[in-house]
Amino acid sequence: MSGPFGIGVIQRAVGVDKESTLAVHEESIREAVARGAQVVCLQELFDAPYFCKVTDAERFDLAEPIPGPTVSRMQGLASELGAAIIVPIFERRAPGVYHNSAAVVDADGALLGVYRKMHIPDDPLYFEKYYFTPGEIYQHGASAEGPSGFRTFDTRFGRIGVLICWDQWYPEAARITALMGAQVLFYPTAIGWHPSEKEEWGKPQADAWRTIQRSHAIANGVYVAAANRVGYEPEPGTDGIEFFGHSFVCDPFGRLLAEAGTEPEILIAECDPAQIEYTRRNWPFLRDRRIDAYPPILNRYIG
Amino acid sequence: MSGPFGIGVIQRAVGVDKESTLAVHEESIREAVARGAQVVCLQELFDAPYFCKVTDAERFDLAEPIPGPTVSRMQGLASELGAAIIVPIFERRAPGVYHNSAAVVDADGALLGVYRKMHIPDDPLYFEKYYFTPGEIYQHGASAEGPSGFRTFDTRFGRIGVLICWDQWYPEAARITALMGAQVLFYPTAIGWHPSEKEEWGKPQADAWRTIQRSHAIANGVYVAAANRVGYEPEPGTDGIEFFGHSFVCDPFGRLLAEAGTEPEILIAECDPAQIEYTRRNWPFLRDRRIDAYPPILNRYIG
Repeated sequence: MSGPFGIGVIQRAVGVDKESTLAVHEESIREAVARGAQVVCLQELFDAPYFCKVTDAERFDLAEPIPGPTVSRMQGLASELGAAIIVPIFERRAPGVYHNSAAVVDADGALLGVYRKMHIPDDPLYFEKYYFTPGEIYQHGASAEGPSGFRTFDTRFGRIGVLICWDQWYPEAARITALMGAQVLFYPTAIGWHPSEKEEWGKPQADAWRTIQRSHAIANGVYVAAANRVGYEPEPGTDGIEFFGHSFVCDPFGRLLAEAGTEPEILIAECDPAQIEYTRRNWPFLRDRRIDAYPPILNRYIG
Repeated sequence: MSGPFGIGVIQRAVGVDKESTLAVHEESIREAVARGAQVVCLQELFDAPYFCKVTDAERFDLAEPIPGPTVSRMQGLASELGAAIIVPIFERRAPGVYHNSAAVVDADGALLGVYRKMHIPDDPLYFEKYYFTPGEIYQHGASAEGPSGFRTFDTRFGRIGVLICWDQWYPEAARITALMGAQVLFYPTAIGWHPSEKEEWGKPQADAWRTIQRSHAIANGVYVAAANRVGYEPEPGTDGIEFFGHSFVCDPFGRLLAEAGTEPEILIAECDPAQIEYTRRNWPFLRDRRIDAYPPILNRYIG
């Protein structure tokens, strides 16, 4: 079991210019590391505006391979700073096979692997099923690591799990990743308010989003760190989306260690494996799971 | 789909005298129904002090068969009032086979069935593995209903699920019961503070308990109603337990509709199936579940 390590969460607005967006995030990562972060998480699709507000085939041009220019640049920064970085981008894997992915780069700059978003939403202004092929379970050539749907990454500092945005609503994803030994579940995210809904639903939506993720910490005895973008992003023909931030880190008992508002912010918190041990000894939920009775969970619906 | 119906949650202290405890709960049920409740939930092991604080073979005498005197009495009350009642008691099924159960009685007094607690805790002052045989998946003679581990009950007013206390920490239990069509998940509970821990852990424990259950509402788009007891119950040779109440009802978005403190209280709230429909249409989590990728959830641990 590794010792304590520092978590960094970057919450930023995204500009239309890719180079300035990358520069802002690089500066943010440097600041996070200077303040003690050793594993830094960027937000979902961090290097581009949230482009899924409409369906437009031109936008597949935003995708990059992994490794590719953006991930390579982050590998260089990780190596320079001695920090692991979670780099969520729009991945071009092959013509017609694009993913909403997160590359995980270790503190020596090595690419540890890629998590590809498993649960893909599709709602007004979030047309993700048009852009993103869902992550698969069995990946060719990944035999050393086994099934690759949900997965963990052994960084220099500790074992982490990465899930992306819509994944956060699924207790199954958190459970499986925690059973694989993740000490922290990272959730790069791009969630916002429809301006017309904000007054009635804004607060309950942000609260539901925080609550479901804190519940994964509690159910599994792991740290949870969510990185969400901020800022209003317009889209011609729509009302646009106001990304609501509220990035946070909570401990294995669901207690908030750090929380942002709706402005750009960098959060720093500590992951202490001893706290995972303590929490799971005292409220030993994993001991009593009724795995004999859980097969019906593999149904879409029962009845 | 049925129409809206009233939920009643009874939060009471338990005396040492069974007859007076039953009388207090009968009066509470009458009051709840007078205030609009149509499905009333009593707290876990409602008719006795929480007896699991020590291991004592004499205490198996507290158990009753289902049906038996207490459940029959509640069947009479249900029929008189025209309300369904969830009756959680210590069940004597056979010599050496005792369960922590909840009988579900419909509004005409019919016994709809029994849920037997599936997840059994075992911690200092909560020695439940000594007393309670866990509920089983395949129950002899239950073929008409199929597997009976997690289950739902069709009351006159709507389809409900019942889970008991420690079950509440398991997203799998909530998920399966919701997939079976439950509109409300009821959680009869007996959870309290160890007096020596209360200052440091009291608030986070009650908050974690509320959060994990609200998360089941959010993940599944169902109502959740939790009934917990209150009051300090001593036990010679121990510091006793201070049951922390905080019973609540929340809607399918996790919003609290009614919430108690640490005093005896009766909560009334409405379950509106239209709200379930609305919530699941707008945040359609059940549509996107990756059931192909969930089999690893049947492991105890991976890695």
